[in-house]
Order: sequence, then structure tokens, then C-alpha cells
Amino acid sequence: MAPQKLQIACAGLGRMGKRHALHFLNRTPRAQLVAASTPDESEIQWAKQNLEPWGVRIYTSYEEMIKQEGLQAVVIASVTTVHAEQAIKAIEANLHVLCEKPLSTSVEISQSVVDAASKKPSLKVMCGFSRRFDTSYRDAFTKMDNGLIGRPSIFRSQTCDKLDPSGFFVAYAEFSGGIFVDCSIHDIDLALWFFGQDSRVKSVVSSGITAVQPELRKHKDVDNAVGIVEFWGGQIAYLFCSRMMAAGQDDATEIIGTDGKLQVNAQPMSNLVNIYEAGGVKREIPGDYYGRFEQAFVTEANEFTACCLDNTKLPMKLSGAVQAVKIGCALQESLNSGKKINFDETGRRLELAVL
Amino acid sequence: MAPQKLQIACAGLGRMGKRHALHFLNRTPRAQLVAASTPDESEIQWAKQNLEPWGVRIYTSYEEMIKQEGLQAVVIASVTTVHAEQAIKAIEANLHVLCEKPLSTSVEISQSVVDAASKKPSLKVMCGFSRRFDTSYRDAFTKMDNGLIGRPSIFRSQTCDKLDPSGFFVAYAEFSGGIFVDCSIHDIDLALWFFGQDSRVKSVVSSGITAVQPELRKHKDVDNAVGIVEFWGGQIAYLFCSRMMAAGQDDATEIIGTDGKLQVNAQPMSNLVNIYEAGGVKREIPGDYYGRFEQAFVTEANEFTACCLDNTKLPMKLSGAVQAVKIGCALQESLNSGKKINFDETGRRLELAVL
Amino acid sequence: MAPQKLQIACAGLGRMGKRHALHFLNRTPRAQLVAASTPDESEIQWAKQNLEPWGVRIYTSYEEMIKQEGLQAVVIASVTTVHAEQAIKAIEANLHVLCEKPLSTSVEISQSVVDAASKKPSLKVMCGFSRRFDTSYRDAFTKMDNGLIGRPSIFRSQTCDKLDPSGFFVAYAEFSGGIFVDCSIHDIDLALWFFGQDSRVKSVVSSGITAVQPELRKHKDVDNAVGIVEFWGGQIAYLFCSRMMAAGQDDATEIIGTDGKLQVNAQPMSNLVNIYEAGGVKREIPGDYYGRFEQAFVTEANEFTACCLDNTKLPMKLSGAVQAVKIGCALQESLNSGKKINFDETGRRLELAVL
Amino acid sequence: MAPQKLQIACAGLGRMGKRHALHFLNRTPRAQLVAASTPDESEIQWAKQNLEPWGVRIYTSYEEMIKQEGLQAVVIASVTTVHAEQAIKAIEANLHVLCEKPLSTSVEISQSVVDAASKKPSLKVMCGFSRRFDTSYRDAFTKMDNGLIGRPSIFRSQTCDKLDPSGFFVAYAEFSGGIFVDCSIHDIDLALWFFGQDSRVKSVVSSGITAVQPELRKHKDVDNAVGIVEFWGGQIAYLFCSRMMAAGQDDATEIIGTDGKLQVNAQPMSNLVNIYEAGGVKREIPGDYYGRFEQAFVTEANEFTACCLDNTKLPMKLSGAVQAVKIGCALQESLNSGKKINFDETGRRLELAVL
Repeated sequence: MAPQKLQIACAGLGRMGKRHALHFLNRTPRAQLVAASTPDESEIQWAKQNLEPWGVRIYTSYEEMIKQEGLQAVVIASVTTVHAEQAIKAIEANLHVLCEKPLSTSVEISQSVVDAASKKPSLKVMCGFSRRFDTSYRDAFTKMDNGLIGRPSIFRSQTCDKLDPSGFFVAYAEFSGGIFVDCSIHDIDLALWFFGQDSRVKSVVSSGITAVQPELRKHKDVDNAVGIVEFWGGQIAYLFCSRMMAAGQDDATEIIGTDGKLQVNAQPMSNLVNIYEAGGVKREIPGDYYGRFEQAFVTEANEFTACCLDNTKLPMKLSGAVQAVKIGCALQESLNSGKKINFDETGRRLELAVL
Repeated sequence: MAPQKLQIACAGLGRMGKRHALHFLNRTPRAQLVAASTPDESEIQWAKQNLEPWGVRIYTSYEEMIKQEGLQAVVIASVTTVHAEQAIKAIEANLHVLCEKPLSTSVEISQSVVDAASKKPSLKVMCGFSRRFDTSYRDAFTKMDNGLIGRPSIFRSQTCDKLDPSGFFVAYAEFSGGIFVDCSIHDIDLALWFFGQDSRVKSVVSSGITAVQPELRKHKDVDNAVGIVEFWGGQIAYLFCSRMMAAGQDDATEIIGTDGKLQVNAQPMSNLVNIYEAGGVKREIPGDYYGRFEQAFVTEANEFTACCLDNTKLPMKLSGAVQAVKIGCALQESLNSGKKINFDETGRRLELAVL
Repeated sequence: MAPQKLQIACAGLGRMGKRHALHFLNRTPRAQLVAASTPDESEIQWAKQNLEPWGVRIYTSYEEMIKQEGLQAVVIASVTTVHAEQAIKAIEANLHVLCEKPLSTSVEISQSVVDAASKKPSLKVMCGFSRRFDTSYRDAFTKMDNGLIGRPSIFRSQTCDKLDPSGFFVAYAEFSGGIFVDCSIHDIDLALWFFGQDSRVKSVVSSGITAVQPELRKHKDVDNAVGIVEFWGGQIAYLFCSRMMAAGQDDATEIIGTDGKLQVNAQPMSNLVNIYEAGGVKREIPGDYYGRFEQAFVTEANEFTACCLDNTKLPMKLSGAVQAVKIGCALQESLNSGKKINFDETGRRLELAVL
Repeated sequence: MAPQKLQIACAGLGRMGKRHALHFLNRTPRAQLVAASTPDESEIQWAKQNLEPWGVRIYTSYEEMIKQEGLQAVVIASVTTVHAEQAIKAIEANLHVLCEKPLSTSVEISQSVVDAASKKPSLKVMCGFSRRFDTSYRDAFTKMDNGLIGRPSIFRSQTCDKLDPSGFFVAYAEFSGGIFVDCSIHDIDLALWFFGQDSRVKSVVSSGITAVQPELRKHKDVDNAVGIVEFWGGQIAYLFCSRMMAAGQDDATEIIGTDGKLQVNAQPMSNLVNIYEAGGVKREIPGDYYGRFEQAFVTEANEFTACCLDNTKLPMKLSGAVQAVKIGCALQESLNSGKKINFDETGRRLELAVL
């Protein structure tokens, strides 16, 4: 008799939801996808073709789904606005939770998930920061952790999406929380990982422009922004996010230490092919985030599964996800106010009473 | 009810056998590994721990295994000397076959597998040239096939293994068929793929040295060799194989056409990390063939499975595997004789009148 | 009879002074180095050996030197603190001037050089921003100027010096003006070049740390800093400067436009050699600024000479050098005050009277 | 009084002649170009504009030029067919000689230059293998010479010219000696440099095709060829030459040793600019040989000058140039005969008894 498989359900079957569902169905040997839910008719049709034949039960109601007999875990890939609510309901139903980032675009709501989880210490509740599962980031982290670059001091990271001229991002900006919460959240999470999960923010400041989509301004958002995050430990992270990269997904990170520097993806590439043609030498780069991080999502699914089944420690603390949202929201605020925001060593915000 | 899965067995559980078994067990959703065989005691122990708990039945006898009820296919990863024999037995038992390369180090024996397969046209019989399933090679092939580089004319390819100072390769050389049959077979297969599966060889010539392991000479082998293969269509492939790369696995290929050039893996890398340290900028490279081609093997398993289940065409003809061995053997002969070997347009070898 | 050569003198024979002197002596065909001055005894000895035999007259007094009969131009490579004074004296003596950057660490003093030059419009007075003469930067600028990347919007640039554990930079910091004025001045000048020489600053903000040399704090300096510069035209430059790069000189620049991105030196290298060795693949990188920009300095000498002899326009305006110092000083101030500094559209600083 | 400068003349003012003339005029501080000769009217016009104003005397007759009072050296950049004759005349006139490669396309005629030079041991006579003066090749050589890669064993090198659709190379092939003598001569010279100047050839074999210019066949030439050169010391060089590179000049070299590998220019580039645009990331590469090796030619001029003035040893032996031609001619012969050519250890060609 083969060992037990984790009985897992998928909430939401949009772009990322479909991927998560298929990863758990086909590429996570120790998990068994048993259910999926979505209120969307076209997503239900997709599920009937692509999931149901393999024994996955399809629901239109999340609440119904999580009552399914034998269910042990849920991966939440619905719209951001319901992440926290669904996560809390799952926790209350004694299910392990893998929730897509961010928990919420609100710090308080994000914290409420952490609070709910803290009442059920036996449950595994993880916010899916996929880059933590990427082999290159892991290799860089291990090398840093082994002292290869001395004391990490400066962190540079960028998340640059391919230009989408359809206007999608304008509508999306209404609920995304803004470019720092939506895109840079990954870079912020990485900074916290590399500088130490308990790093405390000292200040944030940022600037942004709308180079290609001025309508973003109505949602207090931009299409290109840079930000600086100071930590009380004496480290600095500086970030760039963009939604107008012509060549494709261009995410890169550098960790500069007292004895060396580690780079991740400073030369993006789709694969190992170089094209020599009239005009020069060319390589293609991934068109989107999934093109760069597909394997990391699969690893995430497998490791989450293993932690649930074996009751081992998750690779990251849930509270870090709140810290990341807090920094992202502060950067987004600074972008709009034009002001630097300071925090004391306990994490309390310092208001500029008199200047 | 989920669709049927391909019931497959694995013959041989050595280095590659273990990998194939795990690929079919865990990373090939449409296949089910149901059996494995090996005469080796330590491999059996490994199988009891790593396969049996998931319902895989373990055999010491290949012949017994292929009688297992419901078995549909077998992946052959045993020692090269029994590849052909086991493949033919499987074919006779009406099983689909995925056989590790080469079918045999002998052209005649390789041909006997093709002959056996041709009597069972409903069976899928494939020789596992893993690079054919690598995304970079496939991308390069598609680009060439779409005319991006004009008419492909010159092909350069190398297979360079990391230096293994243990002396393993000396013992291995007794049965490997020699460096051109063991290593360059991949490059030869690629040349046939890129130049067209039906390309006819016009001549081969080669030279080799024993730079680090002079004992290889007793098995008529070398540790570094270069060769030139001319085709009647007017193309040239030139090859390099080595067993003394200091940095790791260094396999690279170029296809030079009348309008451009495609390179695969000209800058080998383990991942997307660059290390800046005193002395310069460094990247690591894979330590072995599997480090470079792991995902290709998984794709191979999945596509073979799909072809068997869906009765679709395999991505390559089995006869190509014989052609590759023929070229590899001729290169190995030239290495030892010091002579160029010519073939007429029908593939018949031209002997020099008097020598 | 060969055409006339520009009669030029070199002020200062320190590290850069020696290089400038030799460039004009040996690598600037249309110039003739006729004099050099330095108050330093060891530099005089060097000059007697390396310049005097080729007819270069050596002075201990700058003021004496610029009176030399027939002298037409002077290159100023003395300590930064006398740049402006010497430049003004040369202008008053009707000499063309090529002055090492910065004109001064003070905005006002820098401006005084511009004022002096504006009274002698026939003279060529240039501040030596060497990167403007680098073929890679020029190629990038031309491509941008031709519209290749659309409208330039975000500019990223870094100047990272190799770690010098001798403590040199601590003493040096007393007069250098700080890391933003000393190092980032190049990046700031590039930003002004790429965004347009007349770009007006809207705000600056910065942060820095002393990761390896805490003593820098006594001179209000740091060894690593990042800064953001907003322009009224809607562009953003963000900068990084460091004095602790383990691998060597690591200067890189990116210009991100609405239709593409141009990178300069994102993968630094000393030459075209790759080293494959146990551990991976390595390339060396330049150890210092001159290792990266030697040829740019030579081009600078030749183009300055041509402008003087042919009375053609200099490739950049002198006033830009003041603007660069202004931005550099503001970044340095923000570093120490922790505050963002704002400017109105006329360049006037906005004080936060009431908040 | 400045030290004496080498009085040098330039023979031939074609493409390379103009460059050599200007290098000695402007970029070789210790040399003075005093004369130039060419029978070609348009080249004379060019010389009157570009050389004469700087005191260079122009001749239509080489023989007249080398009689000029005070002349000490000559750089020969005329058509290959007169290289040897002009070199010998210069030697007889007691002039130092820097002769463009090859000395001749004939081994015997090349040897006659060596013989003439050996009678005047005080003269510096050098064949201009420019790559020997390239900083990357020199760095690679030094690293190898210092033992970085163990014992050099395999040498791979290619000279690939940009496709010239004008048909120039067809006419050129009549006198060029063929692609191996014209292009690969550089790679052969490098092999002799890296393996040791006194390496003795054991065999050569080659193959070629006319992929784009079938008319080359009438001059017994091809547009793409590969060759293998075995040395008696147990090393192998393998070569590729092409005249149809779409992207530009693509010259690369690898030296594989028992402990590592050195690459030169495996990723060709014009400069340090990367272009991110729709479709991917691109870099440009040099359009021709001079675009890659300009600085090496300048260094060659300066070092040749220094050897003449200081009576120091030239960086390479003249006899090596004959050895390179010998190997190049044998490769060209093998290309046409289809046969491998063997040599005994004394360099004598081994004929096959009966064929």
C-alpha cells in the first residue's frame, strides 16, 4: 500500500489557480488534488475538462468545498481581495493553507490571518512567495549563509513585467494595492529573507512615474517606481519595479556583502540558446513571471505538501508576509505623498511632528 | 474515474535506472511504475526502500518481470551489453520500449532491434537520446526548421565530461564502445536531427589522445578526441569529446547556416547565480550529464508515455539510432587506424584498393 | 611642414596627473606636452625621468608654468581643492582648460569657473567626465538618441570601487566632498547626458551605511550609499555607490525607455578571456577605474585637443558640471540629514517651512 | 633633446596599409613614419591628404623608397604576392622588417625570407601575426604558461568572417592561397604559440564546402572548412574557418588543458552594451577583423618599434611563420584531395606507398 497522499483543494481557477491546480494534480507526487472551486463559469468549464476526469470535484462555492470529507489542505489562488477571508475560513476548518501572495493589501487584514493561524499551531499556513523555492535564489542564499560574501549589506532587486499594452494593468490597479504591493512584494520578501526575517524597517522612501499608462494615476498607482528601504540593522534594500519592459520578464537581484556580491538572473534568458544573426547576437527572455518561476511553483507545491504530511517546519514564517505588506504599503504611500516615512526600532511609525 | 495510466516497468537500477524509475514513479502523471528488475543486491535494497512502498514490484529477473500481468511498457536502463537483448525480448512480449542509448555498441546488433521492432508496428520503440527532449535544443531546432539561419551547413558539437580521477572510465572503456560511441553518440544523433534524419555519411576521420589516462589505450580508447563527419548532402559535422573537463559537464552545440548561427549551451551554467568575489566573477556549471539534462529525461518519460497511450508518432525514428552507432563506430575505428573512412552514397564503405 | 600641435601643460602629477601627462605626450598626435607642474618632490623626480627627456619642462609652480611662452592649453589634474582656482587662473591667462572632475566640491566655487569661462568665449573649458568619451556609453547614447528605446524614463547607474583595506579612503574623505560627489558624480553626469543636459532636479533623497569603514562617519561620509533623483521632466535616476567591491571596479548603467532598455557594462570584464577551472567558469574584472576607462581618457585628450585646434564645439557644456555637483552635494546632504530635499522648477530649493 | 625615433616606411596603402601607416604616424610614439609607397593612383591621393602634410614622403616605387636616407625600417602591407620579394629587398638594404602575414602562400618562398633574414642577425624581421599582440590572447597565454590549466592538450580555434555577398572573396581566392592559408593561418600560428613554437606536425586532414559561393571551387577554395592538426607531442588542434557569418567577425579560441580550459572571445561583442528590445536581449559584434583586433595592431607597431630601437628580442621567431604556412598549405591540399597527410618526426611528408 502506497503512503498516504495529502488531500488538497484549490480555491480559484484564474491564471495562477489553473497552474496551482495542475501542479498539485500532476507534479506533486505526494499530493492528491481532490477538489477545486470557482464562481466563474468559464473556469468551471475548464475544470470539467482538465480536472474532473482525474477525480477532482468541482465546486462553485468555496465554503462548500472546504467541507469536503477527508480534505486536509487548500491552496488559495482566488482574487487578492478574498485571500485573507478564505484563509481564515480554512484555518477554522482545520485545513493546512498555502495562500498566494499577498495575504491582503491591508496590513491589518494580513495580520488577522497570522492571528487565526497562531491559534492552530498544528496547521501549516504559508504565504506563497514563490521565489523562495527557486533554485537560483536558494543557491545564492546558501552561499551567503555560508559566509561567501561576508556580511550582507546592500540588497538590490527588481521586478519588471513585460509591457502589456491592453490596459489590463489600469483596471487591475484598482484592487492590486499598487505596484509596490503587487510586484515589489517579492523583492521585499527576498530582502527580509536575505537580511534576516526579523529585520526591522527604519525608513522607506520612493518615487514613481507613469511613463506609458497615465490613467494609473486615478488608482494612485504608477508604471515605474524606485524605492529605498533602510533597516535598523544597518542594511539597505533598494528596489525597482516596472510594467513596461519591452523584452520580457526582467527580474534580477543582487546581494552585496562586505566580501563579495551575489547576483540572481542579472542576464535573463529563456533557455540556453544564442541566436547569431545579421545585427548581432540575441537571446530570448521569458515573457512573464511564470516563464521565469514555473519550477519554483512546483517545488513550492511539493515542499508545502511534505511539511503537511511530515509535520515539519515550513521554510518561512507567516508573520514575514505581514512585514512584507507593511513595507510595500509604506512604499506605495511614499510614492503618492512624496515623503519619507520613518519607523522607530519597535516598528512604530514616527510622525514628523515639527520640522 | 481517472483515465488509464501506462503500466511501465524499469529494467536496471544503476545510476540512470534509479533516475528513470523515479521519473516514471513521480514525474510522469500519465504513467504508473509497476515493476523494476535488477540482479544487483544493493540496487534491490534501494528499490525496496524507494519503490516498493509505492506499489512497485521488484524482480531479480528481467524475464520474469516482463511477464507481469497488465504490463504495457518497459524502460531499459541496464548495462549497455544487454540493451538489445532486453529490448528484443520486450518487443516479443508486445511491450512498448524506451531503451537507453546506445542500442548496442555494435551496428549489427543495433540493427537487430530495429528489425524486431519493424515486425510489431503497433509498438512504440524508442532509443532515449535525451537531448532531443531538452527545451534549448528543441528551440534551436524549431528556429532552424523555420528558416531562421538559412540552410544549415556546419555543425559543431561537444560532449565533455568532468574529470573523474578515480579511474572509473578505464574499466568502463572495456565495454563502452569507446568515447565516440559512448559520448559523441549524442552529438552524432543531434547532427542527424539537425541535418535531417536521412542524411548519408560520406566520410569520417578522427584523432585522439590520452592526456590524463594512458591506460585507456589498452581498450583502444582515448580521453580526448576530435572528429569530422562529411555528409553527401554537402554538410559537415565536427565533434569534440573529452573526459577531463575541470569545471564540470561542458556540452555545447552550434549549427551554422547560410544566414545565421544557433548556439546551445555555449556558456554552461548550473543556474542563474553569478558570484563576484576576489579574483573575479564566477558561475558554477553542472557536475554531470544529469545536472544538465534532468528535465529532458523527465520530458522524455512523459512524451514516450503519451505516444504509447495515444498511439501517436514517436518524435524520432528508431533507425536513426543505428545510423548514429554506425558513425560512432567508424569514428572510433579512424581514431585507432589513423585513416579516413569513406562511404558511397548508398552507405557502403569504400575500401582503398591497396594499402 | 606638419600642421601645428596644441602646446599643452599638465598641472599635477599624482595618479591621474601622470596618466594625463603621458596621454598628451604619447597618445594624442595633435598635441605636444610642453610643461608639467607639481609641488611634490617625488612627482618631480618621476617627471624628470618620464617627461623631461621628451622636451617637457618641469615646474614646481603652477603660476610659473602657465606663463610659459607659446602655451595654449592646460590639463588640470591636481588635488580637487585647487581645481577651480587653477582653472580660473588659466582662463585669465587665455589658456584652454581641461579640468579633472569635479570643478569643486562646492557648488558656488564650481559656478565661479563657469562664470570665468563665460567671459572668454573663445576658450575651450571642459570638465573631464571621462565616461562621455567611452565607446560603450557613446554607443548607448546614440542608440537612445536614435529612438531605439523610446522615451528614456528610468536611469540606473552605479560606481563601485574595489575595496581598499588600507584606510586610504578615510583620509581621502576629508576633502573628497563625500561619496556622492566623488564617485556618483559620474553617474549624475551620465543621467544629465541621457535625460538631457537641461533636465531640472525635482528632488533628491539618499541613504548610506558604513559597512567596512566606520571611521568615515567623522567626515560625514559612508562606504555604501543609494540615492534617488527625480527630474521635473518626469524621469527618475537611481544610483548606487560603493567602496567595498570584492571583485574589482564594477560600474554599470541602465537606461530604461518606453520601448526598451540599454545596459552598459552589466557584466564587467577585464578582457575576453573565460577561465574554466575546478569550481566553475570565471572572468576577471578591472581592478580600478582606469582599468575600465583608460581608452576613454585617451579619447578625451584627443577630442579636447581637436576642439582647441579647430575651434569646434566641446562635446558638453561646462554648466553641466555645476549641475552635477549640485545634485551630488544634495545627495550627500540627504545622506546625513535623513531628509528628502525638494526643488522647484526653477532650481530653487524648497524648505519645509511648515508641515 | 628627445630620444631618437625609429624612421619607418610603409609599403602598400591598401586597406591594411593605410591602417599600418596611420598607426606608425599617430599611435606609435617612438616611431616616425617618414615614407610610404604604392603604385596605385587612388592610394597616392589618399597619402597626399593623410600622410604628406605630416612630413611623410610618398613614392610610387618601393625600390626607390627603401633607398631613402636615414630609413631604418619598413612595414610591408602590399599584396601578398610581393611580400617576400619586398621583405628580402629590405633585408638586403639593412632595414628592419615588419611584414604582414603570410610571408607567402608558398612554403619555399616563405623560407627564402627566413634564409635572407638569417644572414643579417642584427635586423629585426617579423611576420605580423596580430593576435599575438592582443591583450586577451596574451592573458590566456600567460595563464596557461603559469600552469593554470595544466598541460595544454586540445586547441580549438576559428576564424569566421562576415558574409560579403559582393563576390569579392571569389576573385580574392585566386591569389589568397585558400581559406586555410588566408584565414586559418592565424589560428595555426596561435596553435604553435600555445603548444610551443617547435611543435612538429604529425598529420593534417580537412574538409570543406561551398555553402554560399560555389564559384570558389574554380580556385580550389571553399567558404567553410574544418581541419584537424595532430602534433608529435601528443596535442591536437582543430580548426574552423568560414566566410559566411551573418552576425559579423566571430573569432574564438579555446585551449583545453589537463586541469582547465581557457577561452578567448567565445562570446564576441563590439563593446559593453546590451540592448533589451522586443524579441530579447541583443549585443552587436565587430563587423570585421580590424574591429576585433585594432588595438593589437597598434601594440604590434609599438613593440616592433621598441625591439628595433632597443635591440631586444622579437616576441616570436620568423621561422614559425613558415611552419604556419606549411600547415595551412597542407590543410588546403587535404581539402581538395580528400586525403589525410602524414609527416614523420623530422617534418618530412610520408607518402602512402601505393594509392
